[in-house]
Amino acid sequence: MSPEFSLIEKYFRRAVTDANTDLGIGDDAALIQVSAGHQLVVSTDMSVAGIHFFLNAQAFDIGWKSLAVNVSDMAAMGAKPRWATLALALPEANEAWLKDFAEGFFACADAFNIALIGGDTTHGPLNISVTIMGEVAIGQALLRSAAQEGDDIWVSGVLGKAAMGLQFILEALELTSLEQETCLQALHRPQPRVQLGLALSSLAHSCIDVSDGLLADLNHILQASKLGADIYLEDIASLPTMVHRLHEPLLQQAILAGGDDYELCFTAPVKNREAILALSDRLGLPLSRIGTTTTSPSLNVFYQNKPLAINHLGYDHFA
Amino acid sequence: MSPEFSLIEKYFRRAVTDANTDLGIGDDAALIQVSAGHQLVVSTDMSVAGIHFFLNAQAFDIGWKSLAVNVSDMAAMGAKPRWATLALALPEANEAWLKDFAEGFFACADAFNIALIGGDTTHGPLNISVTIMGEVAIGQALLRSAAQEGDDIWVSGVLGKAAMGLQFILEALELTSLEQETCLQALHRPQPRVQLGLALSSLAHSCIDVSDGLLADLNHILQASKLGADIYLEDIASLPTMVHRLHEPLLQQAILAGGDDYELCFTAPVKNREAILALSDRLGLPLSRIGTTTTSPSLNVFYQNKPLAINHLGYDHFA
Repeated sequence: MSPEFSLIEKYFRRAVTDANTDLGIGDDAALIQVSAGHQLVVSTDMSVAGIHFFLNAQAFDIGWKSLAVNVSDMAAMGAKPRWATLALALPEANEAWLKDFAEGFFACADAFNIALIGGDTTHGPLNISVTIMGEVAIGQALLRSAAQEGDDIWVSGVLGKAAMGLQFILEALELTSLEQETCLQALHRPQPRVQLGLALSSLAHSCIDVSDGLLADLNHILQASKLGADIYLEDIASLPTMVHRLHEPLLQQAILAGGDDYELCFTAPVKNREAILALSDRLGLPLSRIGTTTTSPSLNVFYQNKPLAINHLGYDHFA
Repeated sequence: MSPEFSLIEKYFRRAVTDANTDLGIGDDAALIQVSAGHQLVVSTDMSVAGIHFFLNAQAFDIGWKSLAVNVSDMAAMGAKPRWATLALALPEANEAWLKDFAEGFFACADAFNIALIGGDTTHGPLNISVTIMGEVAIGQALLRSAAQEGDDIWVSGVLGKAAMGLQFILEALELTSLEQETCLQALHRPQPRVQLGLALSSLAHSCIDVSDGLLADLNHILQASKLGADIYLEDIASLPTMVHRLHEPLLQQAILAGGDDYELCFTAPVKNREAILALSDRLGLPLSRIGTTTTSPSLNVFYQNKPLAINHLGYDHFA
């Protein structure tokens, strides 16, 4: 058995127990069956050392996050994640690293009942490419293009934590030890909002996950739906101890433009406010109503009743 | 619009004309519908600069080949390729390179009627990761594990051309100018055998594509089917002018262990010999019967009626 084959065999091949997976890793391709009455939902994300994670990051965290960011795309579509493939370029066949990476990857896969059905490993600068596949009942997917005028704009969870964690690591921001723990956890082990996305299928008009930053991602919805928006900084949930620091530019930027949060930003009709708040209670997840879509072409952010000058829409990999 | 978004928009987003593709590039994920009575067939392959292609290779060829090697996995399953996602790490946003790369990628996509439904571009050392999805009628896929004792072993096309092209580039092998053209074409623009794979669904027991080298890949079939094999070097089609050079170790190695051919190696019952030769005529593609599966645990290669000592089963990315 070749070393490459044995690496896949040793760390990534597991017995498939999923009824819709007819053939997993080990042939030229996998065979799956999509549930009747469902569309297959497909997305791909690539993570590169030094860009998406630090070279010295924990292998477990890299494994978790490389899958979690893809799961988040399923959540944003209101889809149920089901299957994933993993292509991995490694500078060397470091078995200790691979073992930890695989543990992190499968911890995330198990948390969301995802079967790893295909893989490729090769020599090269560290690069992790995941393709995720999920299912959604035909016509029920949450699209960026379906926001309507006068929709409430909502966001889940607490924004800016991952960005603050990053700024803390870069020694640009001071945090209490409790804040450090929360922010670094958010940065390294994002929790995709799958249950929220599934529940929003019947409540929201449009949805996106906050990967590049709230304003940049909301802007994708607005462009696709040909709308503008007014949002209010004070209404966005942040860390409790941050409320009195909202005037700090670094904090504003973390909340409005910090990437890597993997919360969901969605728009919904006003009539669904109570149902959405009830959903927030049921999931134990804050859902903040932060503004309204408008017919104006612009995205305005207000702080203390004044428009905020926006100069950083988010993170771009070629900016 | 962000630079990253505009790169995808400019070079990779095309109108979707496929009836089973409900949503292509531009949202958090794509939406597709698998044909009734079919399984989805999924495979992923990663190509890295300096490993799978030379740093100075033509961008068009890199684009073509990065998709073609994935299409070949569909051919090996007897599946019809339908959809692909592309994740791309680039050292810089070189638009001329991207334009050529996209042209090569789409030339291959168009040749096989494949819709590009998802993508991710990021900064990083050049890395191309493609996931391909196809369809096969339920239960009709060609598996590595289904070879039977006494099956004929067949291989399509002319083996060793890509390896000879590579040896020529490395100045380890002399070739006539005609041979150069053939071999470099095989190396840079492999032609996946989709029509052959589809036709073999009803004729062959098992199949694999020759990506790592004939012996290594045939060995995957043998291991999965718990069989051995006897094969005969003289029966493997090579370049016409190579016949008198079959005693040269470099030539033997190119034919038996040269990777990158993307021909199909398959096993079929003896009763299908005539039908397979008729298929060869119909496709205008040589199909060579090169040996037989056995119950012995070993893979033997004979040359001039003597067993050949095998010391190189193929290319391994961590060898």
